[in-house]
Amino acid sequence: MDLNAKFDLFAEHWSPKLVAHLNDYEVKLVRIKGDFVWHTHEETDELFLVLDGQLTIQLRDRDVILGPGQLFVVPRGVEHCPRADAEVKALLLEPAGVVNTGDAGGDLTAVVERI
Amino acid sequence: MDLNAKFDLFAEHWSPKLVAHLNDYEVKLVRIKGDFVWHTHEETDELFLVLDGQLTIQLRDRDVILGPGQLFVVPRGVEHCPRADAEVKALLLEPAGVVNTGDAGGDLTAVVERI
Repeated sequence: MDLNAKFDLFAEHWSPKLVAHLNDYEVKLVRIKGDFVWHTHEETDELFLVLDGQLTIQLRDRDVILGPGQLFVVPRGVEHCPRADAEVKALLLEPAGVVNTGDAGGDLTAVVERI
Repeated sequence: MDLNAKFDLFAEHWSPKLVAHLNDYEVKLVRIKGDFVWHTHEETDELFLVLDGQLTIQLRDRDVILGPGQLFVVPRGVEHCPRADAEVKALLLEPAGVVNTGDAGGDLTAVVERI
């Protein structure tokens, strides 16, 4: 599976697309631009791997800045808010069924589609 | 964490290095060159994401060829044998404790070091 080819299948931001399963985990691709919402996943860590662009993962005590080929695991229970001035392409990895907005909910909550 | 910087910390082939945890899963980096051994992981899927080079994952009924930005999940129970003519840098993702040679064992069995 070619990740760039998968990115060509969608254009919207903040709407992760499922591309592969690994046991009960899901590999998702997401286009990120602008500010997300502050939220927490109480039940799981969440892995971000940036493929293109520069992503800022805001934490309450610091910013984590990731470029292509850089990854960060947000530990479970840690409040975070992704942000990108220019569009970022990123790979997400987390257990199946994790909701993108975590405990925050709201308009940016996405239904994950398989592509 | 910068994956290329992590790759600079080791040179040996077929010796996955642990770089991050995601719950009870491990993110490992590996340099691949030559032929591995045919083996099976009966208990888990195994994700390969190629970062540099061209990797062939031989299956008994076909070859899966991966370049940079391409990923493949070997389903649990499926016999496979990675191979690369020129060195490949890849990211592996699987549950903690998975042995690289699976059911095959032998000289290429690696003790995973954290870097």
